[in-house]
Amino acid sequence: MAAGFGRVSAKPPVEVAVTSFDPNAFVLANDQATPKNILKAAYEAFGELTVSFSGAEDVVLVDLALKVAPKDKVKVFSLDTGRLHAETYEFFERVRNHYDIELDIRFPDQQAVQALTSEKGLFSFYQDGHHECCGIRKVAPLRQRLAGLPVWVTGQRRDQSPGTRSKLQIAERDTAFGSDDQPLYKINPLTHWTSEDVWNYIRSFDVPYNALHEKGYVSIGCAPCTRPILPGQHEREGRWWWEDQGGKECGLHALNLPQAATS
Amino acid sequence: MAAGFGRVSAKPPVEVAVTSFDPNAFVLANDQATPKNILKAAYEAFGELTVSFSGAEDVVLVDLALKVAPKDKVKVFSLDTGRLHAETYEFFERVRNHYDIELDIRFPDQQAVQALTSEKGLFSFYQDGHHECCGIRKVAPLRQRLAGLPVWVTGQRRDQSPGTRSKLQIAERDTAFGSDDQPLYKINPLTHWTSEDVWNYIRSFDVPYNALHEKGYVSIGCAPCTRPILPGQHEREGRWWWEDQGGKECGLHALNLPQAATS
Amino acid sequence: MAAGFGRVSAKPPVEVAVTSFDPNAFVLANDQATPKNILKAAYEAFGELTVSFSGAEDVVLVDLALKVAPKDKVKVFSLDTGRLHAETYEFFERVRNHYDIELDIRFPDQQAVQALTSEKGLFSFYQDGHHECCGIRKVAPLRQRLAGLPVWVTGQRRDQSPGTRSKLQIAERDTAFGSDDQPLYKINPLTHWTSEDVWNYIRSFDVPYNALHEKGYVSIGCAPCTRPILPGQHEREGRWWWEDQGGKECGLHALNLPQAATS
Amino acid sequence: MAAGFGRVSAKPPVEVAVTSFDPNAFVLANDQATPKNILKAAYEAFGELTVSFSGAEDVVLVDLALKVAPKDKVKVFSLDTGRLHAETYEFFERVRNHYDIELDIRFPDQQAVQALTSEKGLFSFYQDGHHECCGIRKVAPLRQRLAGLPVWVTGQRRDQSPGTRSKLQIAERDTAFGSDDQPLYKINPLTHWTSEDVWNYIRSFDVPYNALHEKGYVSIGCAPCTRPILPGQHEREGRWWWEDQGGKECGLHALNLPQAATS
Repeated sequence: MAAGFGRVSAKPPVEVAVTSFDPNAFVLANDQATPKNILKAAYEAFGELTVSFSGAEDVVLVDLALKVAPKDKVKVFSLDTGRLHAETYEFFERVRNHYDIELDIRFPDQQAVQALTSEKGLFSFYQDGHHECCGIRKVAPLRQRLAGLPVWVTGQRRDQSPGTRSKLQIAERDTAFGSDDQPLYKINPLTHWTSEDVWNYIRSFDVPYNALHEKGYVSIGCAPCTRPILPGQHEREGRWWWEDQGGKECGLHALNLPQAATS
Repeated sequence: MAAGFGRVSAKPPVEVAVTSFDPNAFVLANDQATPKNILKAAYEAFGELTVSFSGAEDVVLVDLALKVAPKDKVKVFSLDTGRLHAETYEFFERVRNHYDIELDIRFPDQQAVQALTSEKGLFSFYQDGHHECCGIRKVAPLRQRLAGLPVWVTGQRRDQSPGTRSKLQIAERDTAFGSDDQPLYKINPLTHWTSEDVWNYIRSFDVPYNALHEKGYVSIGCAPCTRPILPGQHEREGRWWWEDQGGKECGLHALNLPQAATS
Repeated sequence: MAAGFGRVSAKPPVEVAVTSFDPNAFVLANDQATPKNILKAAYEAFGELTVSFSGAEDVVLVDLALKVAPKDKVKVFSLDTGRLHAETYEFFERVRNHYDIELDIRFPDQQAVQALTSEKGLFSFYQDGHHECCGIRKVAPLRQRLAGLPVWVTGQRRDQSPGTRSKLQIAERDTAFGSDDQPLYKINPLTHWTSEDVWNYIRSFDVPYNALHEKGYVSIGCAPCTRPILPGQHEREGRWWWEDQGGKECGLHALNLPQAATS
Repeated sequence: MAAGFGRVSAKPPVEVAVTSFDPNAFVLANDQATPKNILKAAYEAFGELTVSFSGAEDVVLVDLALKVAPKDKVKVFSLDTGRLHAETYEFFERVRNHYDIELDIRFPDQQAVQALTSEKGLFSFYQDGHHECCGIRKVAPLRQRLAGLPVWVTGQRRDQSPGTRSKLQIAERDTAFGSDDQPLYKINPLTHWTSEDVWNYIRSFDVPYNALHEKGYVSIGCAPCTRPILPGQHEREGRWWWEDQGGKECGLHALNLPQAATS
């Protein structure tokens, strides 16, 4: 059993989490640990792991989490924006079957999507920027999913985005989706891994991967907002390429943007 | 102005519609008319046309409706199931811009989709049949859209489906989506046109078309449930091909199925 | 053993063929026969069948010929222009393995191709018309292959080209590739079949087919000169579409063009 | 005018080249120079540059050579094996038009190709290894093209192949295609550039590139023998992937293989 606080104790678990988890101490203790051991430590701290799986190479998180925690303590969710590639939907299904897990696939709010598309059409992000659409299709469903949770696990890495992820820590308080009353922590086990490390893992352990990765895609998001990159391009150049480089976050990790907590 | 009953009259329009439209008389009067004149007659009868546009060759309905009725009297809606092809989304946008119309794009209910996909994954239709998924992603949003309407216009043709559409009429009462209290009529201006007629029109009038039609697709629906057909195949063989042939309707036109009105 | 003239006789076979085959009589006797029986009669007349296989739906010729003649009496050749689709090359290989036959794949002359491409590049046909390129990549290798032969079998059909194939006969003298000294005959067993007949046969007998047929291609030639067609388009509109309609022959069947024999 | 030996002198140029070019001295003098300056030095030494252009990122050689030598002194040739991707053929044409150059496109020998494919089909390399097919489609036409030349320029880089190209020099004697009587030298201006350097150049100077690079392809060869690679894979893993890693050369640069000169 997990040595962590209280999901099974008589005392209310959330308060315990709030008072007992210190991200800085976690970083100090585990910063040099492998992703697997970071996940193990997180599981021991929280007694449960909720993994955000985007349908891309963060599938390694699913693979690793199931190695350090019992299946019923690993919750995996994905955000289906309604605009993903066919290959991504097929990959979700493959992962679900391969690991024999429940995959909690979240969907956007009907009224919000209809209001946006009926007013601005289906490609407003090319004119208005991606934040409005991401807000409706990704951020709101994520907020619903995270509500009340003490911790979530993400696949963020420092090498993904020089502009926004270079100061990423393996554990941090998520002030974007948590609150003072309901603190939320984020575990980023892949912080120090490079893209190459992730792909070495995928190939070494025969982890299933999204077929888009065989078509030149590195970073994968929604179909109209993702494109393959050229050899030598930074993976983030395949995302929202019509916008200024430097601050590319869909809002899931708004914490990485300057003053995110206050905006 | 439309000579039809009452959208602009002082009397409540819906009741008038209910009592005054006789589909059999309409068929008798217009069965040999061109699709354009059928639409004209329908507009004169109802004072407004609500066109269901699937993202396929029924784009001719949009083109024709705008030739017989003022733009503000032509309402066009589409059902975005969250699983359409990228080409179809792009086509919606092209049609919206080409005709400079509002396109009312309907989306499925968040809770219903999440309940289905989290329990059964994203491809349950291959095992369970397509009706559950179509019910959530197409039929329910359609029902919402049609609520309270007196009439809708569809692109159905007799040649589309020997099994279910051979008795199609240019006008009929829609007992699947209407009710005794709220009668709903369906106008099918393309009833007597063949696929070839439709494509002759598209090419003759430079009507925009879905790029999937250049990739072997004839009938177009959701991405996982549509495929290109071989030369000489009936277009309906490209839909739900893993199921028995003969009764292929997604539920939008359940009226075509035996006892649809009672099931 | 074939009852036909002379491949196994002591007398020189070609002269016998020259003097003994009467295409008009063959047409009179077999015009209403099935393609299979036309092939059977041709085999009986000539004692051997040399089938021209383009990599498209004329694969039915291969299938049928092997039903009416022993394998060693059926010679199949194809013309690899150096510009075919990957799918066509794969299909050649599949046919070769499926029927366990030798496939005589002809290739263009090095000097002729180099002279053309170094002077005019690889897409001169879009400016100059397709005849120069077809002449080098298809017609010359065909002429080499046919040299000395008494007969060849082609997949031509009347419904393929209203402009050039409407008068096609099931047997004819090939004055384009034969000569007075060396007469050559052409057998066209599919003359009276429609595209639909061919495809019914392919599906009924599980004949392998080119994967391009699942991508909207009907008629298939070289990659830069073939494209998918729209629903309802005539298959020939997918070939050399930048040229005037009406006289689309690559030169293999120049006989079909007005005055072909004299030009 | 080129300051180099003899193309314009009264003395026969080839003999001069033979006796006067010292690749070791060239390396010592230019090893730290930029690719552009290496090409400049090579042009000064030989008075002419014959560039081998594969249809991939070695297009930078064409771009650079035209910056250091007059157009009529830059000869560019490519090897059309008859099995390239449509995208590569289109790229050849784009390069030809973009730089307004003659592109000498070499083609394989008819008899040799026919003998191979009629005996073994079109995919024998998957069973027999790629050397037989490469020998016919690439190496023989290259040998013809290089006959009598004093020097050729290639896009080889050390980072392309740890196994075979790590000792590559910017200039070397080509004992695979030259002879004692007819010495041939090879200039490899990109020896010290990485893939990233090449791509920075392509993007910085808007050099046209093969559309396959937008589909996950890095190294590009024949269609059946090239595939996209995954993120983090070495580019050479996309070539002849069914064979042992380590000695992947098509024969153009057999010199890189152990004992190539003697085998």
